[in-house]
Amino acid sequence: MRIQQFLPDALAASLDQRLQHVDRLFRAELHSDLAPVNELASHVERFRGKMLRPTLLLLSAEALEAGQGGAVDADAAAARRSREDVAAAVVEMVHMATLVHDDILDEASVRRGGRTINALQGNEAAVMLGDYLISHAYHLCSGLDCAPLSRLVASTTNTVCEGELLQLHSRGDLGLSHRLYLEIVARKTASLTAACCRAPVVLRDDAAALHRQEQALGRFGRKVGIAFQMMDDVLDLVGEEGAVGKSVGRDLMKGKLTLPMVHWLESLEPAARAAVEARVRALSAGGEAGADPAAAEADAEHLRDSVRGSDAAARTRDAAEDLLASAMRQLREALPESEPREALCALAAQVTRRGR
Amino acid sequence: MRIQQFLPDALAASLDQRLQHVDRLFRAELHSDLAPVNELASHVERFRGKMLRPTLLLLSAEALEAGQGGAVDADAAAARRSREDVAAAVVEMVHMATLVHDDILDEASVRRGGRTINALQGNEAAVMLGDYLISHAYHLCSGLDCAPLSRLVASTTNTVCEGELLQLHSRGDLGLSHRLYLEIVARKTASLTAACCRAPVVLRDDAAALHRQEQALGRFGRKVGIAFQMMDDVLDLVGEEGAVGKSVGRDLMKGKLTLPMVHWLESLEPAARAAVEARVRALSAGGEAGADPAAAEADAEHLRDSVRGSDAAARTRDAAEDLLASAMRQLREALPESEPREALCALAAQVTRRGR
Repeated sequence: MRIQQFLPDALAASLDQRLQHVDRLFRAELHSDLAPVNELASHVERFRGKMLRPTLLLLSAEALEAGQGGAVDADAAAARRSREDVAAAVVEMVHMATLVHDDILDEASVRRGGRTINALQGNEAAVMLGDYLISHAYHLCSGLDCAPLSRLVASTTNTVCEGELLQLHSRGDLGLSHRLYLEIVARKTASLTAACCRAPVVLRDDAAALHRQEQALGRFGRKVGIAFQMMDDVLDLVGEEGAVGKSVGRDLMKGKLTLPMVHWLESLEPAARAAVEARVRALSAGGEAGADPAAAEADAEHLRDSVRGSDAAARTRDAAEDLLASAMRQLREALPESEPREALCALAAQVTRRGR
Repeated sequence: MRIQQFLPDALAASLDQRLQHVDRLFRAELHSDLAPVNELASHVERFRGKMLRPTLLLLSAEALEAGQGGAVDADAAAARRSREDVAAAVVEMVHMATLVHDDILDEASVRRGGRTINALQGNEAAVMLGDYLISHAYHLCSGLDCAPLSRLVASTTNTVCEGELLQLHSRGDLGLSHRLYLEIVARKTASLTAACCRAPVVLRDDAAALHRQEQALGRFGRKVGIAFQMMDDVLDLVGEEGAVGKSVGRDLMKGKLTLPMVHWLESLEPAARAAVEARVRALSAGGEAGADPAAAEADAEHLRDSVRGSDAAARTRDAAEDLLASAMRQLREALPESEPREALCALAAQVTRRGR
């Protein structure tokens, strides 16, 4: 799904053009004078996706601008857009850095499943590539000479790291609560989407006068981010690899509980729940003890089948839809009607349609 | 060795006090509202060292200030020092982040040596802890609201990453040249020490007028950093674990050539060199194939003994001393005589005395 197909033609064309500019800025920033560095950086391509975060940033910028009314000098508008495009490349780079470092955890689980130590070179390279990306994200950001944006980006990455650490700490916690799940997701995923929506305000000279809009855009981005992660977790648990387009079932193998799994566990009788918990524990511990990977995969698939037969995915999707409805309502209250504002709402509405 | 013992009493006391302030800033920045995050962050303590980089920054600041002459308002001086202390905490945090991510490579080699998968949780936590540190380094830096410093820090970490990537790429290259070794070291180590010495200029409002001093301080920091890394590599290759105070011999086990090893290989006849290269290849590949770790350790120790019996360490130390002599001479040409300038030279003179 590309968001552009839900937008009026002129807005879709303008967004396309800007995303291409963002992509060029992204590539130019990563270029090094060292061939081996460029070779490694080229691996980032396999992580590139739909540019959700730059899209959130650029549409938020246009929704905000549409609310300002009055005549706008063409040069000033071009200069503003140019800075927003840089900020969009920054948030995409931050996102790529987190994906690359997340991949280390995934590669680890593949290795647990039986692959050998050769993955090690890959791990080391992945650590360094992620570091290279995050460093360049801050570097690109510092070129904007906008201290408030630098602070927003750095405090956001602080929060993302806290979310990742909290998630790592909670691994194997089969009593994970809704509250803790939301705390993790709010930090590791939604803090960045919230920052994307706030960034266009922070970039402006009149940011202080737009505090209310910044808050509203931030809340919108936060809720969209949480809903997005909820649906990602549903797909990992009950999705089919072919349809989802990436590996699924990883969370279970890592002993990482997510909302649909929490819902499912809650729906079970105590004895059934205890039996499932024992199986999940065995799955996440199994790889470490060198258990048969094929048997583990089969048991994981069996568990995922049971979740598919329950209402856990539907309940999670409902929770995501409630969040998105509230996000759209609040955005419409805070910003005047405009095509970009409705484009943000259309984007939000797509979140629960992923993988269907 | 503490640099303070080579300084006049008043300068030593002032430096001590400021380093304590830097340490408080460092700890305060890392504090989180999440207990598991604080627990993990506490592991940084085991990496903390002599604060060489903050010391370089603070002494450079005082050497620069001493060269400015004229009356100085006490409040302005206090404000300047306060900002420099923050910058010193930033460079220390950047350094800690690189150590934590380097540790992943080291833990990996332990795992290669036979340890099992439990190290994995440690690896994942190390990735996230390093990310947490680098994010907070940029965050603390952004609070100074000094775009030139943010740019210096980010472009420095770009370069450090390039150096690490180049080193990773060169692993197993037994024909490593002096030139490539210096290229790696200049990027991964000396770019940060150079930035430490330049930072006090960059922080000042009159930075543009101090371009010549900034260049001179940067060159000094760069040469000290290269010499420091050369001596570190000597200690890893020929040092005794007890005297050095950390694991040694890792480079060899990782197939990572350093200058003393390059010197030694160059000193061998072709046949002897080929035999040594085969042994180094076997060492670095051995762990992957699950070879006997004790036999590998014994062979590594035997190789290290051979290097100890050669002039490879002495030649490397000579190269480091040449660099340091040139660093001191250039610094003395660029800045007027002062206690802090001579303290920088005393610090440089200590570099080749490490581990003796």
